[in-house]
Amino acid sequence: MRTYRKRDFPVAEVRRFLEPGPIVLVSSQWRGKTNIMTLGWHMVMEFVPSLIGCCVSSQNHSFEMIRQSRACVINLPTADLAATVVDIGNTSGRDIDKFRSFRLTAIAGDRVEAPLIAECHASFECRLVDASLIRRYGLFVLEVVKAHVARSPKYPRTLHYRGDGVFMVSGQNTARYRPRFRPDML
Amino acid sequence: MRTYRKRDFPVAEVRRFLEPGPIVLVSSQWRGKTNIMTLGWHMVMEFVPSLIGCCVSSQNHSFEMIRQSRACVINLPTADLAATVVDIGNTSGRDIDKFRSFRLTAIAGDRVEAPLIAECHASFECRLVDASLIRRYGLFVLEVVKAHVARSPKYPRTLHYRGDGVFMVSGQNTARYRPRFRPDML
Repeated sequence: MRTYRKRDFPVAEVRRFLEPGPIVLVSSQWRGKTNIMTLGWHMVMEFVPSLIGCCVSSQNHSFEMIRQSRACVINLPTADLAATVVDIGNTSGRDIDKFRSFRLTAIAGDRVEAPLIAECHASFECRLVDASLIRRYGLFVLEVVKAHVARSPKYPRTLHYRGDGVFMVSGQNTARYRPRFRPDML
Repeated sequence: MRTYRKRDFPVAEVRRFLEPGPIVLVSSQWRGKTNIMTLGWHMVMEFVPSLIGCCVSSQNHSFEMIRQSRACVINLPTADLAATVVDIGNTSGRDIDKFRSFRLTAIAGDRVEAPLIAECHASFECRLVDASLIRRYGLFVLEVVKAHVARSPKYPRTLHYRGDGVFMVSGQNTARYRPRFRPDML
């Protein structure tokens, strides 16, 4: 599988990649072990600070790892990783080492103690900044403290989960309406 | 603009439409006035009850309308409505009647006091079930109490906002991995 050379990217602009709603791979590290989970339940919550909300079921092995370490990395896989994305979501870090089992390359984070996935188009290093909603909703409020994004393509082919084992693959079709926007609404 | 005949749809399965991350139109009603806003910051939070989280800026006219009425409808527009979606997002209900200005058809909700948009592929009637996070995050925790979905197509062409005036239009390409899933993970 190919890896991507990435550059720094403004944390306030990660919405470009997350707001379209892709499936992401969330990597974490706790007590010397790493893990990866597949996640579709996330949303942008604020530009500055760059906040992302993620709803994680407590049944996931990653749940406690992120809660305890107060950190994770949100990685953006592309369509060529679809089978791996599915397999990561259908196995547990209780049983296997996912980086090893799926031949993914862990790269140390610059700002957090969690690994980036080199095979993903983008990686967003996150700190858990509000743990108070985890009990009620499984809601992790994360702040993106550093963003790494591949230089190209500008619009990666991402996976969008429709349930029932089916993904929509993001299209080449774009609808451009910039001139129709009020400048402050862009 | 075409309207869609819709059928009842199981509320626990609205993730099929929302988890892929489309831009939605949120309609509301308060003190005899209606309004519509364009929203990209939403996520599925639970299957049963069917919970959706939406982050809404307090600058939106809809913010107080939803907070006060404790209800709204999440509508799913398709790519043919792109210009209208943009225009709704770039105008305010303080200044105009959006249903009238954009020639959209309001249909009374069955379960909530907020209008459905007939020109959208799907409409999810929602009640505000937790207002406690509105002050801190603009986070409205909504429960879908009734879902209406067009009979066809099964996979509508939805709009996914990338910022900067550009939308990704959901592709025809689907990646099907059902046999690769554990049955309980579907």
